[in-house]
Amino acid sequence: MFETAEIGSEIDKATYAQQAPEVRARLLAAQTQLGANANFSTIILIGGVEGAGKTETVNVLLEWMDARGIRTLTYGAPSEDEASRPEYWRYWRSLPPKGRMAIIFGSWYTSPIVERAFDREDQARFDQRLDRIIDFERMLSNENVLLVKFWMHIAKKEQKKRLKQLSRDPLQSWRVSKRDWKFFDRYDEFRKVSEHALRRTSTGEAPWQIVEATDERYRTLTVTKTLLGALEDRLAASKVKAEKPKASFPKPRPNNVLRQLDMKSSLDKKEYGKKVLKHQGKIARLTRHLAEKGRSMVLVFEGPDAAGKGGAIRRVTGSMDARAYEVNSVAAPTDEERARPYLWRFWRNIPRIGRVCIFDRSWYGRVLVERIEGFCAPQDWQRAFAEINSFEEQLVESGVVLRKFWIHITAEEQLKRFQDRQETPYKQYKITEEDWRNRAKWEAYEAAAVDMFEKTSTEEAPWVLIEGNDKNWARVKLLKTVAAALEGVVEE
Amino acid sequence: MFETAEIGSEIDKATYAQQAPEVRARLLAAQTQLGANANFSTIILIGGVEGAGKTETVNVLLEWMDARGIRTLTYGAPSEDEASRPEYWRYWRSLPPKGRMAIIFGSWYTSPIVERAFDREDQARFDQRLDRIIDFERMLSNENVLLVKFWMHIAKKEQKKRLKQLSRDPLQSWRVSKRDWKFFDRYDEFRKVSEHALRRTSTGEAPWQIVEATDERYRTLTVTKTLLGALEDRLAASKVKAEKPKASFPKPRPNNVLRQLDMKSSLDKKEYGKKVLKHQGKIARLTRHLAEKGRSMVLVFEGPDAAGKGGAIRRVTGSMDARAYEVNSVAAPTDEERARPYLWRFWRNIPRIGRVCIFDRSWYGRVLVERIEGFCAPQDWQRAFAEINSFEEQLVESGVVLRKFWIHITAEEQLKRFQDRQETPYKQYKITEEDWRNRAKWEAYEAAAVDMFEKTSTEEAPWVLIEGNDKNWARVKLLKTVAAALEGVVEE
Repeated sequence: MFETAEIGSEIDKATYAQQAPEVRARLLAAQTQLGANANFSTIILIGGVEGAGKTETVNVLLEWMDARGIRTLTYGAPSEDEASRPEYWRYWRSLPPKGRMAIIFGSWYTSPIVERAFDREDQARFDQRLDRIIDFERMLSNENVLLVKFWMHIAKKEQKKRLKQLSRDPLQSWRVSKRDWKFFDRYDEFRKVSEHALRRTSTGEAPWQIVEATDERYRTLTVTKTLLGALEDRLAASKVKAEKPKASFPKPRPNNVLRQLDMKSSLDKKEYGKKVLKHQGKIARLTRHLAEKGRSMVLVFEGPDAAGKGGAIRRVTGSMDARAYEVNSVAAPTDEERARPYLWRFWRNIPRIGRVCIFDRSWYGRVLVERIEGFCAPQDWQRAFAEINSFEEQLVESGVVLRKFWIHITAEEQLKRFQDRQETPYKQYKITEEDWRNRAKWEAYEAAAVDMFEKTSTEEAPWVLIEGNDKNWARVKLLKTVAAALEGVVEE
Repeated sequence: MFETAEIGSEIDKATYAQQAPEVRARLLAAQTQLGANANFSTIILIGGVEGAGKTETVNVLLEWMDARGIRTLTYGAPSEDEASRPEYWRYWRSLPPKGRMAIIFGSWYTSPIVERAFDREDQARFDQRLDRIIDFERMLSNENVLLVKFWMHIAKKEQKKRLKQLSRDPLQSWRVSKRDWKFFDRYDEFRKVSEHALRRTSTGEAPWQIVEATDERYRTLTVTKTLLGALEDRLAASKVKAEKPKASFPKPRPNNVLRQLDMKSSLDKKEYGKKVLKHQGKIARLTRHLAEKGRSMVLVFEGPDAAGKGGAIRRVTGSMDARAYEVNSVAAPTDEERARPYLWRFWRNIPRIGRVCIFDRSWYGRVLVERIEGFCAPQDWQRAFAEINSFEEQLVESGVVLRKFWIHITAEEQLKRFQDRQETPYKQYKITEEDWRNRAKWEAYEAAAVDMFEKTSTEEAPWVLIEGNDKNWARVKLLKTVAAALEGVVEE
């Protein structure tokens, strides 16, 4: 694979002088159009061996384009904050908004390649990590991120020559570190491992561009022209206006998990009071052990309007030290959120080790309201199941105890509660025209919810369906489930 | 001071039942109006002794209002990420946007009061910390944050009774920790210290409300009615539309620091090449020592359009490991940023220990472009000098090496560069109508800049004026200054 990048490609001074100004002017024009149209963002990955001119290439890009619209990112050893969250948290955090660019050195590829090249991880783990990359990049691409990936290549001999040259020059020697030589010693392993990684992750939506980096002029023109082509193609494509997706109304199967719930379940006041205190006591004690176990907790709440999510959540938080938890109520996204992939706003709020994060409505909006109201295209909510599963898998792997609650009520009970809300002055804010409109789509929501349970309930991140017609019953079942999940952690 | 909150205030059941529903309905209405009008945010501080019903009060507020518009925040021991930045970083990070509310337990008051009550800090330090609180709260208030501060008080005897009661109940004992008893032992010290803190920080814009907390009904109605009053007053006041501030055109003094610069300073190419490499080498080596010294670095760049800030910044970053720095180009604020005090977007980007953050334009926009274009009222940019000084003082105290560069060019040189930009295809993006408009205000910018140097150049955070007509000279002077600042750190 790398042989094709060891053939001595060069560009002479005259050709360079003739071509460079045009590429430069068009790159700038494309960047300006990107900023103005703003319906996608661009990530440029720069990989490859040391001494192949990665820094120099980035400097060219920053000089040829408007550096103010470009963020340069690198990821070193994770900080404590990063280490106490899933690996991809820091990549998510720094995704550029639509209209902007990011140049990333040392990306999500670095750790898998280095660990494998030094034989600290086996091939199976390596492939698993590459698969995660493929999923991540596919999601980015589907979410309007243009990914342009460059791999700067120089042959072993050439690398040695460059490192030596730099080391010898007293004014430049600081550019070469011990780490660079340590890596050079493993040139062959790196070459093999990188080749495997590149082959596997060169996908239709995010192909690798291997750049023969020996000749500076060739390298510069290859990178800038490739980037220019990708940008111009994408700008042209984005002019074709997508049709507004239509609302869809799935029909529920007559005998589904929601209809099987025993909606008459209830609990009397005395029993309720005793049980609430018992489970709250447990939760209070056990939450304190999360930190020492290296775990955190995420609780998700979904369900029909007026199902009692808010009150239920307050019963959980009421048992916790206020310093331990945070409640995120998911409302309309801000413009910073809208300018990024839809999961970004949730990744933002992933708790660090030791803490509890509660989502009052969540990323499942994608396959519920967005699906039914046609806020996204069918292919968008269809791929969301896999994206959500991958997201939750990462949470669980990193130590998050994840529970997802669907608090259910019957259509009759909802009607009763809506009417009560309209009649009680301090409850009126809770009922809007939209609630009535949603209610009219009861069956579509039911069908979408059942679909969602099927596709996203896993052993580690189960959906817990709660019969919510009786609030006492619902709250006790919720507290009991949370307490049991925490017990599971402490007993590990 | 607390005697007035030990007089046995009570509200009987009937009065409560009669008043509560109206307060509740009006609170909700006010919250809804806040969300719709969105020209201020609200922070409710809940302080006071353990057992005085702080948690219960918060629960009432969350139940009476729409919990989805309210974030509950607490601050425990700082995380590593927080500990490696100024103390107030975490408070800034969590400021609610306009239209929303935050309830804070354990705020910026906790640490000063606890440290003083346990006699780990002396009275002078305590007062200094209270002064910082006053500055902070005054700034919040000026920046459209409504601050409502409650102090829940119960007498010593009552606190003892409550802690004992809870401890005895097997289902509630988890609510009382060893820390609570340790604090109770210091009741008298806490009372004295808190009284001093409250007296000193009860300002016109953010007065303390001391609440006699023994009787639950009295406590609830007092808190909710006070909050309601504050909200309704503020909503009424915010209907008076502020006039759009006028642009101002300060005149420069004929003999000022900018006119005293020797704008003929220059450096030939050979000398330049040698010096650049020398200083870059130093910067590269020294930057690595920042982390071990517990320091970070912030570099600010201001100056006329076309002064060469971008190119100068690239000379600095070119000497650093890409993992060590980040460049922030300050453009129009996002809506999340616009919804908060103007310094919020800069606090967001304060580097952790060991890292370098470069601002291409900065918080000084407040006293430059915002002043001259009339984007803020005169009192806003006038108070900004003190706010900026306080901000920078906090940076420096926490270990930030701060340098502020004004790269200067003459009006003639700017004209030459503008013309060159218009004539060179790949430079045209750099020149806009706005640049020409700003140029027409050259003298006003000059006067504002001189004013700014005078008011914000301190020994620890000096302005460095750089003669920028010759780019070689400017870049070398910049690199030399950065290298010297780093040397200062390493030699400490």
